[in-house]
Amino acid sequence: MTQLETMGANAKQAARFLMNAGAKKNDALLAIADALVENAQAIIAANSIDLENGKAAGLSDSLLDRLRLDGGRILGMADGVRQVAAQPDPIGRVIEGRTLKNGLRMEKVTVPMGVIGIIFEARPNVTSDAAALCLKAGSAVILRGGKEAINSNKAIAEVMCSAIERVGFPRACIGLVTDTSRQSATELMQLSDYLDVLIPRGGAGLIKSVVENAKVPVIETGVGNCHIYVDESADIDMAASIIFNAKTSRPSVCNAIETVLVHQSIAEKALPVIKAELDKKNVEIRGCERTRAVLGECVIPATENDYAVEFLDYILAVKVVDSLDDALDHIAKYSTGHSESIITNDYNAANKFTDGVDSAAVYVNASTRFTDGGEFGLGAEIGISTQKLHARGPMGLNELTSMKFIIRGNGQIRA
Amino acid sequence: MTQLETMGANAKQAARFLMNAGAKKNDALLAIADALVENAQAIIAANSIDLENGKAAGLSDSLLDRLRLDGGRILGMADGVRQVAAQPDPIGRVIEGRTLKNGLRMEKVTVPMGVIGIIFEARPNVTSDAAALCLKAGSAVILRGGKEAINSNKAIAEVMCSAIERVGFPRACIGLVTDTSRQSATELMQLSDYLDVLIPRGGAGLIKSVVENAKVPVIETGVGNCHIYVDESADIDMAASIIFNAKTSRPSVCNAIETVLVHQSIAEKALPVIKAELDKKNVEIRGCERTRAVLGECVIPATENDYAVEFLDYILAVKVVDSLDDALDHIAKYSTGHSESIITNDYNAANKFTDGVDSAAVYVNASTRFTDGGEFGLGAEIGISTQKLHARGPMGLNELTSMKFIIRGNGQIRA
Repeated sequence: MTQLETMGANAKQAARFLMNAGAKKNDALLAIADALVENAQAIIAANSIDLENGKAAGLSDSLLDRLRLDGGRILGMADGVRQVAAQPDPIGRVIEGRTLKNGLRMEKVTVPMGVIGIIFEARPNVTSDAAALCLKAGSAVILRGGKEAINSNKAIAEVMCSAIERVGFPRACIGLVTDTSRQSATELMQLSDYLDVLIPRGGAGLIKSVVENAKVPVIETGVGNCHIYVDESADIDMAASIIFNAKTSRPSVCNAIETVLVHQSIAEKALPVIKAELDKKNVEIRGCERTRAVLGECVIPATENDYAVEFLDYILAVKVVDSLDDALDHIAKYSTGHSESIITNDYNAANKFTDGVDSAAVYVNASTRFTDGGEFGLGAEIGISTQKLHARGPMGLNELTSMKFIIRGNGQIRA
Repeated sequence: MTQLETMGANAKQAARFLMNAGAKKNDALLAIADALVENAQAIIAANSIDLENGKAAGLSDSLLDRLRLDGGRILGMADGVRQVAAQPDPIGRVIEGRTLKNGLRMEKVTVPMGVIGIIFEARPNVTSDAAALCLKAGSAVILRGGKEAINSNKAIAEVMCSAIERVGFPRACIGLVTDTSRQSATELMQLSDYLDVLIPRGGAGLIKSVVENAKVPVIETGVGNCHIYVDESADIDMAASIIFNAKTSRPSVCNAIETVLVHQSIAEKALPVIKAELDKKNVEIRGCERTRAVLGECVIPATENDYAVEFLDYILAVKVVDSLDDALDHIAKYSTGHSESIITNDYNAANKFTDGVDSAAVYVNASTRFTDGGEFGLGAEIGISTQKLHARGPMGLNELTSMKFIIRGNGQIRA
């Protein structure tokens, strides 16, 4: 057995314990929260090694900031774990049920996934967030973070494992892969005897590698090439306000927009208003010929690639389209199926857009930035699914569960 | 583009049409049903070529029987399609919804998967069954049947495509892969730009190949190493009757049992009664030492492998266990997570079993043979999922759908 297979086997054993742990899971979560606060100094000490290594390796300031832990951030992590403890138990919920003609009483109930793998990148706070959600959902978890945060992650995992052990839980409920080689990531993706599901959290490169290599069921998350379409009937000020919010309130996240499509009959009036708003944060516009005809030479000509990529920056592609149908075609071609919004006052256009766009979240007259577990009222989220199987959009505790049928009889046999 | 990529691109285009086809989908389904009956002779003629080829290739009588189509079976296929048409539309159902504090009105609605791939083996009737379910669920389908049935499948697909075309549907709603090489199967499993989900229907070998090779989301189906546990408090006659039904009513299917576990305190009384029942159909028993001590030398010694395999035949492994906990351990080790049943009169034992067994269907005092979409009242089924993601147990129309969030606002932006 490899080290990872041993970890998988132990996690599977721990999952049997967790399957029926019930409300005791909250004791474990509160123990974790307390232990994170009590051991903040040790975690910060480990984190400072990661920060030194990161500086030596030339990490950017923004990456170093994501990596950094301080007292306040650790209190935030503990608070996040307490919030998960306070959520209702997602396990044991009867989804549906009926009595069959032969008298069998059938019900479909939520049950834990079993063992969940999470592959993530630089932020060490994901270690406690993800572990807390999986534990509350009754599953063991195997975490594999980025190498930049390995010392922080080890310290956090050790604190969590010791905390749950003190309240009678197997340490193997939470596993951390300490080998941060590419090979260990690939091995984790193929651990099909032990993993029930793998959730990658990170950029397009990580997601692609998981889709290429995984032999376990995967929930893809997070890649968002999001669009706003400004219909001919749009309120132009509303359009400008929503576009400004969706592009600039946090450009690096997946629910920020990358392309604005504008109906040709409103382009001449709308584009200057939209541009004036975007100029407040110096957003670079890359536009089609018709966009440039309205806004002038200051707009960089858009290439095909500009419509296909996530800029994750203060850059926006803009295209004038002939019709709503053209907008739908453009979105069908380029969208990653995350979030799209139409700005319109036309009832039929709104319905046609919500019917015709095949994305996790489809908006009318609102910013795409709302696609988020907290904003949707789902509680803490483990990620945003951009695939169609099992879960789509923000995934909270309910999306971390499976289900089974329980059928109670008194001797029924099948004819 | 390869031939299969072209088929994928066409299916994706057809899926956009199907996404909003609404009740017109029933017109297409009824056209298919009528066309199958009208073209029965042509289908039977194509089938006779498959049967001749099959005989020449030395297929077994039971395989030839599964392959054979006649007037009655084609009427059955048409009837199956009409039953799918009569089911409620699974698309556009509002699963949940609420108004958020900021006034956003959010709802989660069922939507089509998009493009569904189905890989299946010898039975040509799956071609119309699967196409009908996918079409009703608003998805385009790419079918790949076994090479033994290729002429039958081509004839059935041609009849279906022409029928839907006559009522205004794109032919590409239903695609058949006519290249039956192993390579084309692998290519289909990796068609990630076009397939939203792949459902393999077949034996353990096919499922394993899909898990090894697929780069698209997969729903595993059908492998069933199912157990019945006879508790110390069991009604012995009920146990014998249920075991006889679960083993012998159709030994070749996935919900038939392969192993019986018997509590040691009831073994001496129960085993002879169970054996007497199984003797009526000459079931071969492979038992542990304690089973042989009760039943004698006529019982073949069970090997480790006998507990691990699906016999799919009149063979049953039997093991005497010390306790319910031992039974749970055995099931956790060997079960494929399909269906398991406890025979008991003990309230706590029943609850411990339904809580502790992690399978798609867990029974108390009933035969495992009920794990079936029709028996569960879900309508026609596309397969029985033995994985934990998206769907578990019998999958009907609802399990062939995805969902999306629709959010309606009046200018909301995120703070």
